[in-house]
Amino acid sequence: MTDTIKVTKVAESKISDVDFSKLSFGTVFTDHMFVCEYENGAWKKPEIVPYGPISMDPSAKVFHYGQAVFEGMKAYKDDNGKIFMFRPEENFNRINKSSERLAMPAFEKDYFFDGLNTLLNLESDWIKPGNDNSLYLRPFVIATENGVSASPSSKYKFIIICAPAQAYYSGEVKVLFADQYSRSADGGVGFAKAAGNYAAQFYPTELAKKRGYQQVVWTDANTHEYLEEAGTMNVFFRVGDKLLTAPTSDRILDGITRKSLIELAKSEGIDVEVRPVKVSEIVEAAENGTLKEMFGAGTAAVISPICGFTHKDKEFDLPKLEDAYGARLKQHLTSLQANRAEDPFGWRYEVPSMTV
Amino acid sequence: MTDTIKVTKVAESKISDVDFSKLSFGTVFTDHMFVCEYENGAWKKPEIVPYGPISMDPSAKVFHYGQAVFEGMKAYKDDNGKIFMFRPEENFNRINKSSERLAMPAFEKDYFFDGLNTLLNLESDWIKPGNDNSLYLRPFVIATENGVSASPSSKYKFIIICAPAQAYYSGEVKVLFADQYSRSADGGVGFAKAAGNYAAQFYPTELAKKRGYQQVVWTDANTHEYLEEAGTMNVFFRVGDKLLTAPTSDRILDGITRKSLIELAKSEGIDVEVRPVKVSEIVEAAENGTLKEMFGAGTAAVISPICGFTHKDKEFDLPKLEDAYGARLKQHLTSLQANRAEDPFGWRYEVPSMTV
Repeated sequence: MTDTIKVTKVAESKISDVDFSKLSFGTVFTDHMFVCEYENGAWKKPEIVPYGPISMDPSAKVFHYGQAVFEGMKAYKDDNGKIFMFRPEENFNRINKSSERLAMPAFEKDYFFDGLNTLLNLESDWIKPGNDNSLYLRPFVIATENGVSASPSSKYKFIIICAPAQAYYSGEVKVLFADQYSRSADGGVGFAKAAGNYAAQFYPTELAKKRGYQQVVWTDANTHEYLEEAGTMNVFFRVGDKLLTAPTSDRILDGITRKSLIELAKSEGIDVEVRPVKVSEIVEAAENGTLKEMFGAGTAAVISPICGFTHKDKEFDLPKLEDAYGARLKQHLTSLQANRAEDPFGWRYEVPSMTV
Repeated sequence: MTDTIKVTKVAESKISDVDFSKLSFGTVFTDHMFVCEYENGAWKKPEIVPYGPISMDPSAKVFHYGQAVFEGMKAYKDDNGKIFMFRPEENFNRINKSSERLAMPAFEKDYFFDGLNTLLNLESDWIKPGNDNSLYLRPFVIATENGVSASPSSKYKFIIICAPAQAYYSGEVKVLFADQYSRSADGGVGFAKAAGNYAAQFYPTELAKKRGYQQVVWTDANTHEYLEEAGTMNVFFRVGDKLLTAPTSDRILDGITRKSLIELAKSEGIDVEVRPVKVSEIVEAAENGTLKEMFGAGTAAVISPICGFTHKDKEFDLPKLEDAYGARLKQHLTSLQANRAEDPFGWRYEVPSMTV
């Protein structure tokens, strides 16, 4: 038990109502949530309270000016009941980078870690062991000051909610390479996990879905000649035995799964190139048979294999491989995350056990 | 009284607590608000209820994915107590265009007009006569479905809140021409009044404020060579006796004040050119003395005269003119809006008087 956080527990857990074999991603939440308020230039004492509605003034700035950032993280349980997070410091650093770009205050590191550790001890029963099971953690910050003048809020809420999760994507994923719509501009907020970046993608993604594509792979807004990211995932391409992915920039999210996969692949002896990836070279590789794989990488999906893509009405199917990098790296990474494989990188974070 | 809307009035108005001579923009709201909910593919019967907090699940999609759009409108009262809106159909069409781009449902025209008309009759005492007084109207739509999967919400709230307003900007406005940060990308959502567009501007605007500039004039993200808009205002430049403003695009908001000013200026015999405006030509005009005026145009500010600008550390002051276009057009437009000048354009909309 920590002194930094005030904990109010639910009278009765709702866990017995949940069918853990039929979880739809991000729709069922655990019993508690972490809440910390910012006012007068400082974060106040955080609380863990029963999960439930929050009361917001209709003029709250988040509704009008979109000051909202978030993170996606996961907690895992090994067969001995120990709980782990994966590189949580990366999420902590990134949410503060996102906040900075949206003129929002940085969160306190102690509160972030104490909050997560306390919450995870409290919700331990919601974390099931097994590589495909996890507790999805959603820290987010919203602007709560009342008033519709277009300026940064002076009040915020930092909240963490938790949703038990299984695998995120099911079925085969086909993608469309963007050649008209864009996700972000140079000098914009594309690198941030800003709420508005997601709403902006929904319409073009819905158009793509109507044509049979689950995701759009965004290209640079200036020329549409370079492949960037898929909006909820970074993207990797295997050409021959080489793995390619775009460098991060102010348009591309610095994905934690992305950078972990780069290191993991290198440690497995895979040749990885981080450099601008041209649409034309991927199309050419698909045409001459050297494009062997494409996959998305992100916290929710971990790795999402892509079975085909379309660029300007030209459709390409990818081969089915026996020894796909994607499947191999996913197995390796999820095992590492859940304490079922060695962690030479020091990425695993063991949640200290405590009585809450 | 209309049958389409259920009205629940406050027991007692809070209007006597309000000092109408000291209003800070968008911070004081009237007694009532309009609320309409979308569910199962349809807008439900709207309600007018006492202004107050709304209850939101922490997983509501607006907090995570920024599905939120808004409008800014004003109501005016003439000396006979008649209430007017200015081109409200334009706001109706634009909020639906914004919604479409964010994969949100279009609102019903009847509900929009019946809602505004009923609300304005109810809040008539909050609208003070006089060119500088108005009731600022803020229709907005937010995604209310619970759940953190990144897809469009199936539930929304359309809300209208009202804030009595005086002049928006005070003092002299200096602006910075953007040469690093950007507001929007080709193929993006810059033309929409999407909440996320505003949060994205706060940080660069705060940096500009620290250097003594109240606003940033955004340039195109690709080259930073063309002047676009100021984020909460469109921008006009007077070079010699010619008025210049950028054409709308998928990066630039189709401002109602902007397009009204274009027509109004033409009707006054001013030569108006709507075409891409180069940074270099404005800098050159400032250097050779032909740049006579710059002003922003938007609903909140109407016209906001700009007294100077800086581009890449070169600072320029604008002359003070006796017969400025900005002041003249503002006087003309606000008089027209408040029924103190002829309206050959048919822009004024008289709110039908009703007993609520």
